[in-house]
Formats: sequence, C-alpha cells, structure tokens
Amino acid sequence: MPPSRPDDPTPQAAAELQAVFINTSLERDGTKSHTAKLMAMAETIMSRAGAAVTHIHLANHDMPNGVHADMRAHGADNDDWPRLWDKVKEADILVIGTPIWLGQESSLCRSLVERLYAMSGMLNEKGQSIFYGMVGGAMITGNEDGLKHCASNILFALQHLGCTVPPQADCGWIGEVGPGPSFADPQNPGPATGFDSDFAQRNTAIMTWNLIHMARILKDAGGLPRYGNDRNAWSDGARFGLTLPEALAH
Amino acid sequence: MPPSRPDDPTPQAAAELQAVFINTSLERDGTKSHTAKLMAMAETIMSRAGAAVTHIHLANHDMPNGVHADMRAHGADNDDWPRLWDKVKEADILVIGTPIWLGQESSLCRSLVERLYAMSGMLNEKGQSIFYGMVGGAMITGNEDGLKHCASNILFALQHLGCTVPPQADCGWIGEVGPGPSFADPQNPGPATGFDSDFAQRNTAIMTWNLIHMARILKDAGGLPRYGNDRNAWSDGARFGLTLPEALAH
Amino acid sequence: MPPSRPDDPTPQAAAELQAVFINTSLERDGTKSHTAKLMAMAETIMSRAGAAVTHIHLANHDMPNGVHADMRAHGADNDDWPRLWDKVKEADILVIGTPIWLGQESSLCRSLVERLYAMSGMLNEKGQSIFYGMVGGAMITGNEDGLKHCASNILFALQHLGCTVPPQADCGWIGEVGPGPSFADPQNPGPATGFDSDFAQRNTAIMTWNLIHMARILKDAGGLPRYGNDRNAWSDGARFGLTLPEALAH
Amino acid sequence: MPPSRPDDPTPQAAAELQAVFINTSLERDGTKSHTAKLMAMAETIMSRAGAAVTHIHLANHDMPNGVHADMRAHGADNDDWPRLWDKVKEADILVIGTPIWLGQESSLCRSLVERLYAMSGMLNEKGQSIFYGMVGGAMITGNEDGLKHCASNILFALQHLGCTVPPQADCGWIGEVGPGPSFADPQNPGPATGFDSDFAQRNTAIMTWNLIHMARILKDAGGLPRYGNDRNAWSDGARFGLTLPEALAH
Repeated sequence: MPPSRPDDPTPQAAAELQAVFINTSLERDGTKSHTAKLMAMAETIMSRAGAAVTHIHLANHDMPNGVHADMRAHGADNDDWPRLWDKVKEADILVIGTPIWLGQESSLCRSLVERLYAMSGMLNEKGQSIFYGMVGGAMITGNEDGLKHCASNILFALQHLGCTVPPQADCGWIGEVGPGPSFADPQNPGPATGFDSDFAQRNTAIMTWNLIHMARILKDAGGLPRYGNDRNAWSDGARFGLTLPEALAH
Repeated sequence: MPPSRPDDPTPQAAAELQAVFINTSLERDGTKSHTAKLMAMAETIMSRAGAAVTHIHLANHDMPNGVHADMRAHGADNDDWPRLWDKVKEADILVIGTPIWLGQESSLCRSLVERLYAMSGMLNEKGQSIFYGMVGGAMITGNEDGLKHCASNILFALQHLGCTVPPQADCGWIGEVGPGPSFADPQNPGPATGFDSDFAQRNTAIMTWNLIHMARILKDAGGLPRYGNDRNAWSDGARFGLTLPEALAH
Repeated sequence: MPPSRPDDPTPQAAAELQAVFINTSLERDGTKSHTAKLMAMAETIMSRAGAAVTHIHLANHDMPNGVHADMRAHGADNDDWPRLWDKVKEADILVIGTPIWLGQESSLCRSLVERLYAMSGMLNEKGQSIFYGMVGGAMITGNEDGLKHCASNILFALQHLGCTVPPQADCGWIGEVGPGPSFADPQNPGPATGFDSDFAQRNTAIMTWNLIHMARILKDAGGLPRYGNDRNAWSDGARFGLTLPEALAH
Repeated sequence: MPPSRPDDPTPQAAAELQAVFINTSLERDGTKSHTAKLMAMAETIMSRAGAAVTHIHLANHDMPNGVHADMRAHGADNDDWPRLWDKVKEADILVIGTPIWLGQESSLCRSLVERLYAMSGMLNEKGQSIFYGMVGGAMITGNEDGLKHCASNILFALQHLGCTVPPQADCGWIGEVGPGPSFADPQNPGPATGFDSDFAQRNTAIMTWNLIHMARILKDAGGLPRYGNDRNAWSDGARFGLTLPEALAH
C-alpha cells in the first residue's frame, strides 16, 4: 500500500454520514466557549469530507436534569431533549465535547449522559441498543488537568450505551498545572493558546478520521450482526453458546 | 432480517481470529481465581466459534514493573514480557480480566497496561499504532463495588493504545455492598455465587459476540484506512485537512 | 481506656456544631429519594448529639449550572445558590449525598461541586480557603455499582476546596450487579432493601461520628494554624520554608 | 491573630512527629526519579520543623503483589513489606508519591495500596483501624495529565483505610498536554522544569504544613474518640444511636 499523502484527501470519505457534535460547555454564549473552538476543527474536517454535521450548544437549550425520555412527564415545564434526541438518534457519529472543572467533565456533560442513558432501553430492529449504529468520540479542553479522566468517563458511557469507540477517539488540550490561559485564548506574541500544540492537532486529526473510517466501515457492514447481542432473543431464552463454568469443568 | 435463534450458532463466526485473554488476578494459582471462572465463559464461546484462544495467567509470569519493552535492559534479572508480547501482538481480540481491590483494578492490571503502553510507539506498515488491528474488552469480578470504574480504566487504556472498543465491551459480576462471597464461590443451597445472575450472563455473551463481530468486520475491512492516522505521514507534514480555528473564522 | 458501651451516647458530642446535608438526587420529590432515606440516618444521629442540622434537597431549588457565585450576573433569571451558600458557609460539617447513574454521581452533584468551586477564592481571616473550617463526608446510594468511585470524586473535591476529610468519611449502599431494587425499596417478606446491611449501617455510624469528632477537634483547636497555608502571606512573598530541590542538592 | 510572616517558622511545629514518604516511581534508581525531587521539598520542610522523616524508594524493595500481610506465607520467596510496615505503622504522617503513566498512578502505587489494605483489619486499642492515628497526603508528577485523578485515587484509599485527609493534601506538577519534559528535567536557559511553577510550589507548601498541623492536632487530641467507630463495640452490638429510617418515620 502506498503511503498516504497530504494532498490525498480521501474525498467524500464521510459522504452520507450524519455527525452530531454536542458541546457541554457551561458558557451560554457559544462563541466564548474554548471547547467549541476545538470542536470546530473536527467539524470542519468532517463537513469537508461530506458528512452532514450538526453542532448543538447544549447550554442554549432547556434540558432539565433527569433520567427519563421526556421530563415534562415528570414535573418539568419544558424539555428540549425530545427534539434534540430526534437529531441524536440519527447520528452515525456522536461526539461529546466538555470543559474541565475541578478535574471533571461539566455538570452539563453528566446531564447529557443521563438523558442519553434514559434512551438506552430502546432497541433497533435487531434487538440491539438503539446506539449500536453509532461511533463515539470525546473532545476536552481545560487549562490544567483532567483530559484523560474526562475522556475516559465519556467514552465509557458511550460504549456502555452501545456506541463503538474507534482507536484514539479522544483529543483535547490542557495547559501546564495551575491556572492559566484556556484553549484559543489570545497570546501576544504568538498564536492563540494551544494552537501550536502538535499533540492537540495530531490527536484531533486522528480522532476525527477514525470516527469517519469506523462509521463508514460499520455502515458498510450493515452494523453489527445481531447474534449474541439481540436482547429480545435473550429474553426469549437464547443464550448464544454461553455455558456456566461449572458445566465447563465437567 | 429474520430473528436470530438460540440454535443458530453462526458457526465459525470467529474462524481465523486470534484471541488473547490476560487474567491479572493477584492469585498465583489460576484455578483459584474467580475472574478466571468468568473469563472461561467468554473463552469457551470464542473457541467454539473457531477462534484460537490463548489464556495468560499473568501472576504466573515474571513480568517486572516498568515502561520499557524489555526490562532486562533496565536492571531486571528476568522479563517474560517480550515473549508474552509476541503472542499479544498477533491478537485480533485482546481481553483483560481483573479482580477489584479497594475499588480499583489490580496492581498487576496496571503493570500490564504499563507494559502495553511501552509498545505504543510501534507502528504498523500503515504508520498506525501497532494496536490498530485489535479489538479490546474488559472482564471484572469483585465482591462488592467498582466494576464500571475498573472497566472504564481498562477500556480507556485499550482505545488509547489503538484498539477498537465495540459496543458494551465489558462485563463482570459484583455482589451487594460489603464483604461477601466472590464470583463462583460455592453456595449451599443454590448455584455457585453469581452464576444465576442474568445480568452477568447476558453482558458476558454480548461482550464476547461483539468482540467477535467487530474483529471480523475490522479484519474484513483490512483494518482502518490510514488517512488521518498515519503518524509517519503526519511527521512528514501531512495535516489531513486539519485547519486551526483562527483560519476557520476568516 | 474503658471500652465504649452502646448505652454511653457521648451526650451532646455535637453541641454547637452546624451540619449541612445536601441531597443531589435527581428526584424532585424528596420523599421518593432513596438517598434521602440513608441521609436521614446520619442526620438523626447528629441531631440527637446536639448539632443543628439543615437538609437541602437540591432538586427543589433553582440553581443554574455555572462556575460563578451568582449566575444572575451571568444571564440566569434566577439563582437560589447565593441563599444556599449563606447556609453552607456556616457549616462545620458538610455532607453531600448522591445517587449513582451509569456509575457516576448525579449531574446535580457535579453542579453543586461547580458552585462550591466558584466560592473557593474566598479566604477566611487567616488567609485560608473559606472551607478550612469544615469537615466533609459523602453518602451514596445506587442499585448496582459505583459507590467508591462516586465517594472518591466527592471527597476529593471537598478536600481540594479546603474541607478536612476524617477517616472513613463515606458510606452508602449498592445492590448486586445489574438492575434491582434501590435502598429502602419495600421487600416482601423482609425489611426494606438494604436495611439489613450490616456494612451500610456500620459505615454510616462510623462516618457520622467521625465527622462529629473531627469537627469538634477542629473547632476546639481553633481551626488549622495559618502558617504554610496563608494565601495572602504567600502572595506577599512568604515561602514557609519551601526550598527548591536544586538548592537542596548543594 | 497577627498575620504570619515569612520569617516566623513556627519552630519545631513537627517535633515528635514521624513522617513516612513512600515513592512509587517505577525508576529503580531513586536519584533519577522526578517524583523524588518534588518529595524532597516536602521532606525538607518537615525535617526542619522537627519531624523524623523516613523516605522509602519502593522500587528498591522486594515487595510482591498481593493482599496479605506477608506474601511469604502465600508462595513468595521474599517479602520486604513486613519490615516496611514496621516503619509505616508508626507514622503520624504518611505521604505517597507517584508518577503518572497513561493517566494513572503507577502499578507500584497500586501494589502499595493493596499491601496497606491487607493491614486494614488491624485495630488499635480503641477498636479503630490501625490507620486512625495517621494523616495522609499525595504527591504526583507527570509530564502531561492526570494529577487530580491520581491524587483522588490515593487520598480516597488513605481515608478509606483510616487516615485523616487535611485540606488540600495533594500537590504536584504536570506540563502541557502531550509528551514533554518531566519535573526537574534541566532546561536551558531557565530553571529546571517546573521549578518556576508558583502553583506547584504553593500547593507543596500548603500540603506539607497542613499535614504537620493536622498530625499535631490529632496527636494533641489523643486521636479520634472511639465512640461510633469502635469496631469491637459494634461487633458486640453497640449501634451508637443508629436508627433505621423506617423507625424514624414512626
């Protein structure tokens, strides 16, 4: 196989793919979000590769805390989640972005995971979790510490729900220990903070393309076969070859 | 698509796949490991589906702590890791099993991750991490708490190294809060502890089959395309469409 | 020292202590919260020992997400936090209770930590974080997994803010792996779920009394001496004996 | 109270205190450990304040993995832990230092926690965990990410065992995201890496003094009172005022 070249863009590698990026920044004004700046880099790649990209700035929506599909049935006056879910459930690629606060993903990020979790009982026509068609990624920014911890929490939740996590599906930027400038904050002189980070750039490119490649592979394969993960069949008594160890010992 | 049936074993779904299971129990006698009992359930499914399954009981090996490929070059008298790695690097499926101690995966599990991490600079012929051909899973047993936390730590490490994590790639068993019997401990009357857990059984089946399916899909696709994740190309200046946000704003 | 006896209640051990318990359940109706049931056990002990106990059911309050002291200055219509903080900042004992969702503390719990974090720049008259007078604890309930992970996250945040964490300052109840009844759910026959757990009972008693004892010790000692932690003095150039290793080597 | 002054060293604040620092670096040669450099800063403060300081470089000892007090009774040829424990159990202050590998504390750090955990059944003369007399801290170095996560894991384990965690009991240094120099690596020009970090310096000073202050307070108070945490009394039926919620409701 010949080496890939910088000028060989695998044109339209993401054609027909739907990507949903959800930014869980606590900043209501999306233009001020540092995480949004990082996400824009991945979104642009995907968009240019042919994907239909939706960006949701969650803080602009009225999404109550809860673990139900529609919190209006549980005492909330409003709930934008059902409408957001209509978009999310169509995604081939789902990327969650979060800032870091005290070493953790934002409370809004946890709210999002709770609302996604509320949908996890839904099955597709194969009896699999509704999330089985999706691949998932995580994008993190903070000014000091916690990238891996937050990415780990997000990616674990996504795979638990039913997403596939391709290799190296997280990226982000953090600065040196202690308070300091955030990603994309102006520096004078020099590029905006973090823009010169080869590591952040490379991992963003890798994550983005791996999400595209895996979504394409999964779509072309018609998703995962149902054998072994069909929850309706399990409920009906199928055990897919599972044998208890005591039987194995005999 | 017709529903899958319990008697429809997708025969040889795992043909030609190599699976390596590594148990990081602290118990030197593998026959006493509770985690081994759980792992046997997944191994049996894979084996019957045609995979070549290798089980490594890590506590039986002389693997020094360290973050180098061969610790004999760094002061250790012996190091079984290079020989173990010969096996691991051929795997299509890599499963790490661990017990839980004080809410965490075992120290031996951390040692394993460190030794795997020591190999992460190795690239395949596409310039991708050597782990790109593998799918990864995690199997956890404990008597009280920590399954998700340990699984999250393991799966994050695996995807960071370059493995693909299919949906619901972890499973295990824990008991009620507080000290108590461990998985597979005899109960009288009743089945061995945990054997009657529908949840543990179902998740073991799902994890196992999703590992098989994803490994098959990935193998059939020839692995992930290199565009975007070819580190040699990146080093040579390829940017794969990455544009800094400041350029995007113009 | 003679052994303590069950009928020797150390009467009024908590006299003059203020305790604030904050439940971050997502359930708006506090009477339905499983975590509230567990918290009541600790609250009753403290109250009988003479403490003034305040219980806050956070879901009943209008507390916007954010990392500022008053979100009304940042676009929110309402913000109950400033009024809640008036109560919290007087606490000698601060206990955070949370349910577990997908292995993590609730989003409301993260919101609370973010709002507490927003106050961490406030210093007391010694130049210490305003939280230095408090001791902190964590109470967790869930139906399957995550007690230690959630407790770890909460206690770390509390000590980072400036609380003292006494020995064994967490407690809770979880059931066996997989879905199942929650703490205090009715069982028939038998006591309510979890009520017969010696482990949950014992750890609740230990946590509660250690919070009381440590709050008393800290109060009697006049808090922590300021030498070494006086941030104003640090800003003014005090280094409290800190020497860089390069100087040490000479 | 007059403000503390830089030239007011609270002489001998740590007199009669025993401090044990354990470095869990994977580097066998302690002089090459970056974490050791940071730990030396805290050790020097304590030593000058009158504490008897012991530094243990764990990688130089033969401490097998396991969860027993003496692994020689469980198949190990050697075990230095019993001798190390003789030192640890006398400590008023216990500090664990660790490097970060793939976002986590070292495997040796996990081994140490497991061996400490193996001792947690030991009770002092009050029926409390043998660790009740100790205060605990965590010191972390890494070149990119994970300080808070590792500190959280260590401090949680210490408080779970029975140590008191004073305010802001962790410190460390990490650099910007991605590979880079480690703490104390030479820079030319400029001071050694991290030495100019006001944040790392300040937090090291705060942690160190808070450990001293809290150990002093705890020692002067004669430790924590036994009421409520006396495990022997609990086993004998004492409930220390604990009442189940169902009784509370009546």
